[in-house]
Amino acid sequence: MAKLIKKLSAASGMAPGTIVHIGVERSEKIKITVFTYNEAEYSLKEFSNVDEVVAVGDENNVTWINIDGVHDTQLVEKLGKKFNIHPLALEDLVDTGQRPKYEDFGDYLFVVMKMLYHSRGNNGITSEQVSLIVGHNYVISFQEIEGDVFDSIRERIKTAKGRIRKMGSDYLAYTLLDAVVDNYFVILENLGEKIEDMEEQIIKRPEPKTLQTIHRLKRDLIYLRKSVWPLRELINGLQKGESGIVKKTTEVYLRDLYDHTIQVIDTVETFRDMVSGMLDIYLSSLSNRMNEVMKVLTIFAAIFIPLTFIAGVYGMNFKYMPELNWRWGYFAVLGFMALVGIVLLGYFKRKKWF
Amino acid sequence: MAKLIKKLSAASGMAPGTIVHIGVERSEKIKITVFTYNEAEYSLKEFSNVDEVVAVGDENNVTWINIDGVHDTQLVEKLGKKFNIHPLALEDLVDTGQRPKYEDFGDYLFVVMKMLYHSRGNNGITSEQVSLIVGHNYVISFQEIEGDVFDSIRERIKTAKGRIRKMGSDYLAYTLLDAVVDNYFVILENLGEKIEDMEEQIIKRPEPKTLQTIHRLKRDLIYLRKSVWPLRELINGLQKGESGIVKKTTEVYLRDLYDHTIQVIDTVETFRDMVSGMLDIYLSSLSNRMNEVMKVLTIFAAIFIPLTFIAGVYGMNFKYMPELNWRWGYFAVLGFMALVGIVLLGYFKRKKWF
Amino acid sequence: MAKLIKKLSAASGMAPGTIVHIGVERSEKIKITVFTYNEAEYSLKEFSNVDEVVAVGDENNVTWINIDGVHDTQLVEKLGKKFNIHPLALEDLVDTGQRPKYEDFGDYLFVVMKMLYHSRGNNGITSEQVSLIVGHNYVISFQEIEGDVFDSIRERIKTAKGRIRKMGSDYLAYTLLDAVVDNYFVILENLGEKIEDMEEQIIKRPEPKTLQTIHRLKRDLIYLRKSVWPLRELINGLQKGESGIVKKTTEVYLRDLYDHTIQVIDTVETFRDMVSGMLDIYLSSLSNRMNEVMKVLTIFAAIFIPLTFIAGVYGMNFKYMPELNWRWGYFAVLGFMALVGIVLLGYFKRKKWF
Amino acid sequence: MAKLIKKLSAASGMAPGTIVHIGVERSEKIKITVFTYNEAEYSLKEFSNVDEVVAVGDENNVTWINIDGVHDTQLVEKLGKKFNIHPLALEDLVDTGQRPKYEDFGDYLFVVMKMLYHSRGNNGITSEQVSLIVGHNYVISFQEIEGDVFDSIRERIKTAKGRIRKMGSDYLAYTLLDAVVDNYFVILENLGEKIEDMEEQIIKRPEPKTLQTIHRLKRDLIYLRKSVWPLRELINGLQKGESGIVKKTTEVYLRDLYDHTIQVIDTVETFRDMVSGMLDIYLSSLSNRMNEVMKVLTIFAAIFIPLTFIAGVYGMNFKYMPELNWRWGYFAVLGFMALVGIVLLGYFKRKKWF
Amino acid sequence: MAKLIKKLSAASGMAPGTIVHIGVERSEKIKITVFTYNEAEYSLKEFSNVDEVVAVGDENNVTWINIDGVHDTQLVEKLGKKFNIHPLALEDLVDTGQRPKYEDFGDYLFVVMKMLYHSRGNNGITSEQVSLIVGHNYVISFQEIEGDVFDSIRERIKTAKGRIRKMGSDYLAYTLLDAVVDNYFVILENLGEKIEDMEEQIIKRPEPKTLQTIHRLKRDLIYLRKSVWPLRELINGLQKGESGIVKKTTEVYLRDLYDHTIQVIDTVETFRDMVSGMLDIYLSSLSNRMNEVMKVLTIFAAIFIPLTFIAGVYGMNFKYMPELNWRWGYFAVLGFMALVGIVLLGYFKRKKWF
Repeated sequence: MAKLIKKLSAASGMAPGTIVHIGVERSEKIKITVFTYNEAEYSLKEFSNVDEVVAVGDENNVTWINIDGVHDTQLVEKLGKKFNIHPLALEDLVDTGQRPKYEDFGDYLFVVMKMLYHSRGNNGITSEQVSLIVGHNYVISFQEIEGDVFDSIRERIKTAKGRIRKMGSDYLAYTLLDAVVDNYFVILENLGEKIEDMEEQIIKRPEPKTLQTIHRLKRDLIYLRKSVWPLRELINGLQKGESGIVKKTTEVYLRDLYDHTIQVIDTVETFRDMVSGMLDIYLSSLSNRMNEVMKVLTIFAAIFIPLTFIAGVYGMNFKYMPELNWRWGYFAVLGFMALVGIVLLGYFKRKKWF
Repeated sequence: MAKLIKKLSAASGMAPGTIVHIGVERSEKIKITVFTYNEAEYSLKEFSNVDEVVAVGDENNVTWINIDGVHDTQLVEKLGKKFNIHPLALEDLVDTGQRPKYEDFGDYLFVVMKMLYHSRGNNGITSEQVSLIVGHNYVISFQEIEGDVFDSIRERIKTAKGRIRKMGSDYLAYTLLDAVVDNYFVILENLGEKIEDMEEQIIKRPEPKTLQTIHRLKRDLIYLRKSVWPLRELINGLQKGESGIVKKTTEVYLRDLYDHTIQVIDTVETFRDMVSGMLDIYLSSLSNRMNEVMKVLTIFAAIFIPLTFIAGVYGMNFKYMPELNWRWGYFAVLGFMALVGIVLLGYFKRKKWF
Repeated sequence: MAKLIKKLSAASGMAPGTIVHIGVERSEKIKITVFTYNEAEYSLKEFSNVDEVVAVGDENNVTWINIDGVHDTQLVEKLGKKFNIHPLALEDLVDTGQRPKYEDFGDYLFVVMKMLYHSRGNNGITSEQVSLIVGHNYVISFQEIEGDVFDSIRERIKTAKGRIRKMGSDYLAYTLLDAVVDNYFVILENLGEKIEDMEEQIIKRPEPKTLQTIHRLKRDLIYLRKSVWPLRELINGLQKGESGIVKKTTEVYLRDLYDHTIQVIDTVETFRDMVSGMLDIYLSSLSNRMNEVMKVLTIFAAIFIPLTFIAGVYGMNFKYMPELNWRWGYFAVLGFMALVGIVLLGYFKRKKWF
Repeated sequence: MAKLIKKLSAASGMAPGTIVHIGVERSEKIKITVFTYNEAEYSLKEFSNVDEVVAVGDENNVTWINIDGVHDTQLVEKLGKKFNIHPLALEDLVDTGQRPKYEDFGDYLFVVMKMLYHSRGNNGITSEQVSLIVGHNYVISFQEIEGDVFDSIRERIKTAKGRIRKMGSDYLAYTLLDAVVDNYFVILENLGEKIEDMEEQIIKRPEPKTLQTIHRLKRDLIYLRKSVWPLRELINGLQKGESGIVKKTTEVYLRDLYDHTIQVIDTVETFRDMVSGMLDIYLSSLSNRMNEVMKVLTIFAAIFIPLTFIAGVYGMNFKYMPELNWRWGYFAVLGFMALVGIVLLGYFKRKKWF
Repeated sequence: MAKLIKKLSAASGMAPGTIVHIGVERSEKIKITVFTYNEAEYSLKEFSNVDEVVAVGDENNVTWINIDGVHDTQLVEKLGKKFNIHPLALEDLVDTGQRPKYEDFGDYLFVVMKMLYHSRGNNGITSEQVSLIVGHNYVISFQEIEGDVFDSIRERIKTAKGRIRKMGSDYLAYTLLDAVVDNYFVILENLGEKIEDMEEQIIKRPEPKTLQTIHRLKRDLIYLRKSVWPLRELINGLQKGESGIVKKTTEVYLRDLYDHTIQVIDTVETFRDMVSGMLDIYLSSLSNRMNEVMKVLTIFAAIFIPLTFIAGVYGMNFKYMPELNWRWGYFAVLGFMALVGIVLLGYFKRKKWF
């Protein structure tokens, strides 16, 4: 299950703009990949040191710098200086507990998003923070760990498939955002299947264990919601930005992305509705069950307790109990007992208890 | 029951604008019907190949191209090129998991809606995606399967009934939208009847099975809501569009359509209120039932357990038990038991337990 | 109880503007009453045929045409032609399942409202649709059946009481709307009394039957809400209308009407709050009751079951049971039983179970 | 407990502007107090007749006319004519079921508020309607009954304490509103204490009676909310009014009053949250209790019912029952019973049932 | 646990602007610390008397006056006169029950916030009111008690770390606000851990005590929410202020602070969702438990009550009971009892009751 809140207090009391990594401790070496491309050609280089990264290209190229790992704050700081990035943006980059957000710094746009994964082992969702710095002819992307969601984009750049090589840095940024949002659909589909399985099970045979599963689904949805809701405002911000980094031609794509985001939000809300409905159903079927158990008890008790009483009466040791000496007394009592039993059974039958 | 989420992940990782059909696999041949009409005359042709479709007519005619089936992505792509439709619109056309939406592409408007049907067999609701491309003098409509909701419109064009032949492509688009919204009322009426039946049943005799029915109604309403809510914004968008495709004369019709949509949304919300009220009633009557069962048990147990105890006392085998030898001991005990029974009955009666 | 949804599907598939009566079938002759008045004089005529109705008067008079019954669609159509009313307005007039709405057609305003009545027989609420066409110097009002809510207004016109004869058609329209809204207060007062009765009853002695009453109140409130909420927007629309039909002098009255509407909505919401609170109280007192029943059962069972066991032990037929031969064995056992009983009673007493 | 709805229907069917007193019937003589003051001096007169009230002073004085009692509609009407007040304002003045509201009549502002009191006897809240007519150099205030909330303001005028004598009629109106809002804090504090007492009690020992108290708190809060919410809009309206009656210098005070109102609303919402949380806690602890009761029953029954069965077996009268003749049979059975009892006790102990 | 409402009524009935301390009574001497700094140098002085505080410096310095303790209303009043602060601001300063708010007085800004602490002893949250007066080149901060949250800021001023010494009074104010908001994360993290612990416990083994903990968490969250929600508007107000006190260069910091506030609000809402979900889970597992208890009871009762009845039958003392004399009667009955027991066990097994 995903932690709903990261170690947030670590940076408390620090001066604003102090770069403190908040998140899972890692020690891998950070990998820097630099793509430079235009319509005609592309180049791809890998570095593990900021100093080696040459400054972003001229007007004719788009440069995409991808950084896998934000735990090396020194590296991030150096990079920040090199690209003249505001300390507050750097602070948010390395604080992986950030809420998705969009900020226009004039020369560049700063975007924070959450990439979601199904965590192996237990069935919950884990997230990774993806941040973008989008300048006029460059994009810098930061991932917490090396992932493969951007692989298809790398492929498209290499093979010049689609219009990516013909467009600027804003389209590249859109493509990266689109990859993240597309990935939500995978998560949603998986959750949707779980929910549908769950529903059938709850109506057919509710078990105490289902309570845990409902609870876990609910939690995953709370988590998903937290990551997805701010996207709306974020993409809206990108569309309406006044920095001129997002060009007119890219706007229709952002509008499409916005629609997809709304669809994700919509589906999350629908799932929430369904899961909370499931809890109601679960509680109702628990009550139903209890009713069943009570009825069994009551039928048994209400039939046999009076009969036992009758038997008890004729088990008394009084000297003078005339019935005891009757020839057919025993059988008469047995018959009477049968009668009582049948009448009571009929009564419960008429009440539709069984 | 309707699937709440379509196979969404299929297109994940693809370049934006890649045309991938998402939805039920079909293999029927796609049918293309082309209506061309003006106030004076009309023509109707059928094709099964895009190449045969001649370009849309001149200023004096309205052309309505209806395509039954969006599973043939190649055909859709060809058509897209012919009519110069943006790849993102084509992508959404064939992805039948789209949320209803409206997009203004300048030269044409793009509208996605959901047509709802009662599915045969089980009692749920199924949906079909209907998309419209509305240009200055043409409308292209896409349906997943051949349906009959647009038949009355075809009839009106042929017989020149109403004002359809006198108006432009925007009025045709309005008529198509109106047919879809009108169809929602059929669905709502059917659901309304089910809900009213259900209500009576729940108050009179709640059964475990009713829980399933409530749950199914709830789901249908969630589904309906998902299809209906975005319509509000969609029609609003059409009304306020600045492309000049929607003319002043059509606006009053769109306003009327908007009112109908609000009425549909209103009714869906009312139904949701009622169904969630029904669950409360169901739970309450379960509790009531349980109370009844408990009272029966308690009355039986509380009366006969003490009596059995008394009988047990005189069934003990002590040598010296003076009462056993009394002449009327047995009858005295029987009398005492009757008294105890009557007192307890009176007690429960006074408590209004029966 | 009021139907929450009218036969809506009847008009489905028709061309927009087709005039189809939706509502209870009626066959009475339609009555047309025409008032013409100015500050100095008034005239009142009755017709049963549209052709007889002379066109609305000149600038110096206000004409009020009241039509009782909208089931005669031919009559409505004729009237529509005479007064040049848009077919969409006529369509909505005769469809009694309309949501309250306001539409500005330029030359006239179109208003749809719901008049509510307590239906006799069962205790629910029924509604009647009231529509107004408000022109510069005329008002046409449509009622489903002949009612008496407008009687006091007729009286005021005749007796020239208040300022009605001095004002224009907009003030007349306001007066009609005001009569409808005033009538809501009668409904609310009645519901309020029912709710207060209910509350006392629930706390004092909840019965299964109360569940039904709560449910019915809830339904009535859903119904009321559906009729009342749209009024807000409606009156707002009237106030802000740009057609010049509503004059400055009438605005203060509309503002007052708006305040009254808000008060109605407010009260409906308060009632909803209270009724849903009542269900909680009802469920809680059911649980309380169950607790009581369970305690009675447990006290009886927990005291007498052990005692019966003791009696059972001494009812065993073993040859060698020394106690049986003791002189005071029987009394010792009785004493021990009394002791056990008292200890258990004390235990339950200390637990405050009784 | 406060009535949630006043006799609203009394004025139904009347012409707008008809002055009908709605509220508790009273017969006391109405008292009119007139303060006239400026920075240098003040005068205070009392009347019981409108005719005696001289017209409001010149530009240099502020006149405050306070009327205790609105049940004398004739007096109100006369006053209305004298000060040229719109009939709709007069109608609202005497209808004590009004929702708090603000209306700008150009020459004067009309404000309706609710003063709340703890009613003696039962513990609920009662309200009194306070209305203000605020002109350029006069304020007319209407109270239902003579109260003491405005006493401190009278004192301040007499002693020229604070800045009241230096400011105009708008500041006087603000002071009156402020007195009413300040009074809400007294109510809130009292409710807050009740809620905190309640909370402790519910967790420690829930009783059926607490249900009633929760219900009453809930109702008081619904009532309070109804009186307080509209204040927000009201004060906002006063601040943004364009009549020039409220001067720039008073605005900062109104802003402060607005903040206080938000604080009152906030606290009411917090209390509502808490009270509805209390119901959940109450229900949970009822369930807990039920569990306890059931466990006691089950432990007693599950232990003694099998034992009684064993005793019953050896109480059978079969001729040939070898165990009965064994020398240690009785003790063996007793021992076996003890063993069964201990095993079952251990079983329940391990289940942590006690 | 924190008091949700302070003694609010104390100031009721006072003239607006009367300075009355509302909050915990204290008697410590008030401490006044005055920092004066510019980029080159700083000075720090301590006073315990307002008269000694020299007026704020010239344009080249920023002066930060920190006052620990607002219970000495005379001192606050003197200070108010010295710095020309509006009486309404002073009134709010010393009323520690204020809602967080922002007010623009033209020459200075007035900000009220809540600092939250975990109270020792019991596990709740306590709050302290922090108010700021932000002028063009000075900041006056008021704390209820001497705290250490601002210590790191003092350190930064002394050591000239970060950009604090280079910026104006607006940046100082931002730093103070930032320290307060950062502190919320500490509270949230602590609450988050408690909630996660709670969740595990509830699913594994719910106890009556957990109810109290849930309740306390809920209350803390209500309290937190009340302190945090108004911050949004407050910081928004600061950003959009028109007084010119907040400079362009500080805006990006306020935007960042706004994002952090949204994150705090978001997390509080998520926690509320989770805690209310926990109550549902708790109630469900109570029901589950009850079901378990009931099943145990029913199995025991339903098996042994019939068996006891059979034993009772053969314990009757009828003269003529043929079975009693059968050679294998006893064993036959024992066998029959075993059979009945096994059949019933099998029945419950098949029902999956154990």
